[in-house]
Amino acid sequence: MTLFDERKERIVKDYETLITTTNRARFSRNGRYKRFENPVLTADHIPPAWRFDFDSVTNPFFMERLGINAAFNAGALYFREKFILVVRVEGQDRKSFFALAESENGIDNFRFTTPIRIDETEDPDTNVYDMRLTLHEDVWIYGLFCTERKDPSAPSGDASSAVAQCGIVRTKDLDKWERLPDLRTKSDQQRNVVLHPEFIKGQYALYTRPQDSFIEAGSGGGIGWGFCSTMKNAEIIEERILDSKVYHTNNEVKNGQGPAPIKTPDGWLHLAHGVRNTAAGLRYVLYMFLSSLEDPAKVIHRPSGYFIAPQGEERIGDVSNVVFSNGWIRKGDDMFIYYASSDTRMHVATSTIGQLLNYVKSTPTDPLTSRGCVDQRLELIEKNKAFL
Amino acid sequence: MTLFDERKERIVKDYETLITTTNRARFSRNGRYKRFENPVLTADHIPPAWRFDFDSVTNPFFMERLGINAAFNAGALYFREKFILVVRVEGQDRKSFFALAESENGIDNFRFTTPIRIDETEDPDTNVYDMRLTLHEDVWIYGLFCTERKDPSAPSGDASSAVAQCGIVRTKDLDKWERLPDLRTKSDQQRNVVLHPEFIKGQYALYTRPQDSFIEAGSGGGIGWGFCSTMKNAEIIEERILDSKVYHTNNEVKNGQGPAPIKTPDGWLHLAHGVRNTAAGLRYVLYMFLSSLEDPAKVIHRPSGYFIAPQGEERIGDVSNVVFSNGWIRKGDDMFIYYASSDTRMHVATSTIGQLLNYVKSTPTDPLTSRGCVDQRLELIEKNKAFL
Repeated sequence: MTLFDERKERIVKDYETLITTTNRARFSRNGRYKRFENPVLTADHIPPAWRFDFDSVTNPFFMERLGINAAFNAGALYFREKFILVVRVEGQDRKSFFALAESENGIDNFRFTTPIRIDETEDPDTNVYDMRLTLHEDVWIYGLFCTERKDPSAPSGDASSAVAQCGIVRTKDLDKWERLPDLRTKSDQQRNVVLHPEFIKGQYALYTRPQDSFIEAGSGGGIGWGFCSTMKNAEIIEERILDSKVYHTNNEVKNGQGPAPIKTPDGWLHLAHGVRNTAAGLRYVLYMFLSSLEDPAKVIHRPSGYFIAPQGEERIGDVSNVVFSNGWIRKGDDMFIYYASSDTRMHVATSTIGQLLNYVKSTPTDPLTSRGCVDQRLELIEKNKAFL
Repeated sequence: MTLFDERKERIVKDYETLITTTNRARFSRNGRYKRFENPVLTADHIPPAWRFDFDSVTNPFFMERLGINAAFNAGALYFREKFILVVRVEGQDRKSFFALAESENGIDNFRFTTPIRIDETEDPDTNVYDMRLTLHEDVWIYGLFCTERKDPSAPSGDASSAVAQCGIVRTKDLDKWERLPDLRTKSDQQRNVVLHPEFIKGQYALYTRPQDSFIEAGSGGGIGWGFCSTMKNAEIIEERILDSKVYHTNNEVKNGQGPAPIKTPDGWLHLAHGVRNTAAGLRYVLYMFLSSLEDPAKVIHRPSGYFIAPQGEERIGDVSNVVFSNGWIRKGDDMFIYYASSDTRMHVATSTIGQLLNYVKSTPTDPLTSRGCVDQRLELIEKNKAFL
């Protein structure tokens, strides 16, 4: 057997084994959701035919030609009886693109089907990432994503400053994707823009992050909210803050909406990320809140603390100390929360609408001081005495 | 048995076991090179006699007297039928020095033989590190390294600003090292300076990094190239950029030449490092390129993406998310690539000239946009259909 055949056989076999491995739930210590033993997607889940040249003449060593660095930050949608992820796939060249992956059960056997070719606007994207999928009541599936281009005002010698904006595509079949003009707002930059699934007074409603500057969210910040009359030439005139940055919380440096919120009888269920600074860089955690059915921009329950923080191997990756979610799926009462760890791999956590509503409604609000938190905890301990 | 004897016996025995452990190659998923199961050098590979006081009167607890923090960023040379590493050894006092280590096979059984005493110039080095060894055609072995002194213009209260310059030593036997005056260039600082092995039009040719400022490469940057007529009083009048920083690549923040390039029939093979920023600090990866035999400063093949990125335990260390190489050895067609992970330990990856040339010549160039990268990947997928 030649080196080419030997390597090809092993790599294809290892890949098939990996993507058909059963994923088992782990015991949930916090009772909010179950984590699973394995990530649902990694760079190794990318099909070999996307990475290796299978021609023994041009690739005698069966060498990886176009390597993949990471698979993370996926948008999610239940579509035609499949769990669909639109994954941020990052090549070893550092450019991200979107690729479709699907699974029957949402927890394992995810298989990548195709990279998505997104049309460019007249101002070509250098990088695209973090798509939020929203099945809107206008019957289109929208994908809002971040598009970055080099900052034209960067001084010479600065090869890293970028301008981030919200790119928009829409589809009805996840096959043909129509690129629409980028969102315009009064903010210099936009990240983490998410389309609300329903019309609000006949308008499209979007979660935004006003006044974003690169890496540091700069002045302003918080999760914003604004309206536009069309998605074909989307412009938001006014943004209003729905959930602010707050001193000495998990979201004191910045925060952003995760996936589109989920409608429940008690309100809109939100998943968001919060960021604080540390001596070893930024730390990203996920938190939840519930907003009003009458006014989705009005927060009615805000449990204290984080919902998911990096744990075990999740802590380490290309950008360590990060969990991030831009996709979740509701199927009946079941919830599938897709989150990435450390900009490297995708995980799933499962829960139910009942559990999540109990969590957001019954967890007390953050009293914002050490003394307040001690009092809150002593009250819990005191209350528990009756049951011990 | 006394505590002293008990501890001494165990520590000496553990050390001998460690440095005589066989190192096995791991399966190479990318087909470019093989990684190995164990690092080739760590702080624990430093001989006990370099660290412990062996006198039971003064050291009744057999305590480590002069601890070692890390062994990393080694220059490399095949000399007198041995694989030689000139290792950056960092004491627990944070000062680095150079130490010689040698092995028969280049992949295990490396044994430290001696620290190297480098003479000071009239301006004493506070710290020295990252030596590149070049056996030049003038028959001297040159060691170019980074020397740092406190920035004399730092404001009072700033105890960390440094000025980095290129120090130079030469030897013929790896025993007597002659210190030459530091390199002078028009740049305020220099790091990652490497001597090209051959004369270019009768002059010494050096890879540089112009306009470097401490930690951030600041304005300018890129891998430069310049000439000097003597190494005994080396001065480069003009530096020209050979490989720039590029927006949204693995080397958008800074980059630098690795070891001296290797001459092949198809061109000079280069290994370099590229740096990007993340929310968790800088990320260092290694990349390759090929330059022209006629003009070594002219890049003729530049494969997209990185060649080596931190993996598994390599991701974590004193400075996490870093791989760095300043030494490699060619022996016949075999290549031994020495790289450090996270400023903590040394590894080897083995490959061949044939594989590396196939890699640099057949991997496509980075198209620099997300859409270009998707098109490139779809083309690969399309081409592979004929073979599946």
